[in-house]
Amino acid sequence: MEKELQEELYDTIVIGAGPGGMTAALYASRSDLKTLILERGVPGGQLINTAEIENYSGFRSIEGPELATKMYEGATAFGAEYSFGDVQEIIDGPDYKQVVTSDKIYKTRTVVIATGSENRKLNVQGEDDLRGRGVSYCAVCDGAFFRDRPLVVIGGGDSAVEEGTYLTQFASEVTIIHRRDELRAQKILQDRAFANDKVNFIWDSVVEEIQGENKVDSLRIRNVKTNEVSEISAEGAFIYVGLIPNTEEFESLGITDDEGWIITDEQMETAVPGIFAIGDVRQTVLRQVATAVGDGSIAGDQIYKYIEAHKTEKAALAE
Amino acid sequence: MEKELQEELYDTIVIGAGPGGMTAALYASRSDLKTLILERGVPGGQLINTAEIENYSGFRSIEGPELATKMYEGATAFGAEYSFGDVQEIIDGPDYKQVVTSDKIYKTRTVVIATGSENRKLNVQGEDDLRGRGVSYCAVCDGAFFRDRPLVVIGGGDSAVEEGTYLTQFASEVTIIHRRDELRAQKILQDRAFANDKVNFIWDSVVEEIQGENKVDSLRIRNVKTNEVSEISAEGAFIYVGLIPNTEEFESLGITDDEGWIITDEQMETAVPGIFAIGDVRQTVLRQVATAVGDGSIAGDQIYKYIEAHKTEKAALAE
Repeated sequence: MEKELQEELYDTIVIGAGPGGMTAALYASRSDLKTLILERGVPGGQLINTAEIENYSGFRSIEGPELATKMYEGATAFGAEYSFGDVQEIIDGPDYKQVVTSDKIYKTRTVVIATGSENRKLNVQGEDDLRGRGVSYCAVCDGAFFRDRPLVVIGGGDSAVEEGTYLTQFASEVTIIHRRDELRAQKILQDRAFANDKVNFIWDSVVEEIQGENKVDSLRIRNVKTNEVSEISAEGAFIYVGLIPNTEEFESLGITDDEGWIITDEQMETAVPGIFAIGDVRQTVLRQVATAVGDGSIAGDQIYKYIEAHKTEKAALAE
Repeated sequence: MEKELQEELYDTIVIGAGPGGMTAALYASRSDLKTLILERGVPGGQLINTAEIENYSGFRSIEGPELATKMYEGATAFGAEYSFGDVQEIIDGPDYKQVVTSDKIYKTRTVVIATGSENRKLNVQGEDDLRGRGVSYCAVCDGAFFRDRPLVVIGGGDSAVEEGTYLTQFASEVTIIHRRDELRAQKILQDRAFANDKVNFIWDSVVEEIQGENKVDSLRIRNVKTNEVSEISAEGAFIYVGLIPNTEEFESLGITDDEGWIITDEQMETAVPGIFAIGDVRQTVLRQVATAVGDGSIAGDQIYKYIEAHKTEKAALAE
């Protein structure tokens, strides 16, 4: 398909309308920068898949989609444009950058990548239907909803073992189900899990189905060595089999680490001047609504400074 | 006065109940850590002095004190204790740290310093009375309220000149009033300001009074060389004569830079293990509600990890 080249030159294009992207757009447009948000789904990012949020300061408790709506109102209140766009590529250039979607080409001085990440799924029955009703991918978000309940964690890497131990703060017991007979997690994390009376292990086993009506009540598992099938009762199933950054489209820019996370400095700028990255898509220590919003405010502020500096540079060269 | 030694050992004590401190307390207590917030004023930090906030994502517009109340509700919803306390010193120790206030000594495994910063004041008549009604210390927060209005900026350093230029995005004109005949700001910032048609300068002059009923309408200024007194009309007065980190009490810990800002790594930990710092008090690129909240979530999460690691270490030593 012939792509339609857009005439306008934007000051910034924000790719992804999660909490980070919407905050960057709010800051940039509030500084009177010509701002466009491109999103391939609906506004909200991971908020859309989150039933209840009680750790974003200012809200005692709020449903994810409701917070998404509120953030969208703020993000577009100062003139930021919002448009559907499935971004395929960013092309850097001397005068401006091009953001290429499936049907259009946009011109912009700066880009903010806020495309987030996706949880790798088990791809078993019940996983999608019971998401937010016992199936979770985030212990720090949802652990507190399971006080004195039995939980399972699926996985054997750092996240599975660390978050499994974390969940014992709440759960009556935590059973870690792993498909091999030893963990991949760091030794220190393993030591902590083994020393914790509330943590049990089921080895050499995979989950075949997450069961329950309206909420999780049990899991059907299969031992991969004996092929024996059994059931385990649990009210929550925390799945930690990997997180995938949404950065495939940006690989050619050379701004990611080996696992695909985008590396930035503390100004949120990547190795390519004028291209920023924020929120879950960054190589970072914590991925939360709060951190994405903090990142977004910094990027929004830095974009203004980047554009001002660039103007002065050009004026100096023209003299 | 004899100080009263408290018996409880806290997992963490958060010093300062601004947006950062309240978020750290929310995260720590939600992970079932025994958490105490100490504050020498009322909850809210700089929010208390902020009339309207329209750049904290999730709220289209909210008054500072109202947001402070909402954050306080979240911070204390999971068992965090809140107490008055004017902290005088933190004493590091092998088993725990002591937080010394004017009348008590608390024991804790970790400390989060969230004491923020204060704007250096002009100390002239009208400054306090008209704060939030034309008098501001934050262009990025309040600039957008002054579209097509004449503004003054007081100061001659980086912040005064950079923020003065920034304010031309909104203002009809910006007059920078400086007490000397040249600026202290970096050359590049000066160049931008001089090249901007909307920026004017009044040299060798100090503000003697900020005038107006209910809102700023003019300033009385005095030329320090001629002693001539004059008036300038303006609807907003942005004061940039310095920012002072609230870190005097922590100087002996050796965790600050030359200007008193606390240096942390990206986990928000200072040079002293188990002592964290967040929000405006950090050496950082931007000081906003959003950044403080992001910092607070990271510190709250790291405290849990620090305490877990310490437990394992102790258990290993005891073997």
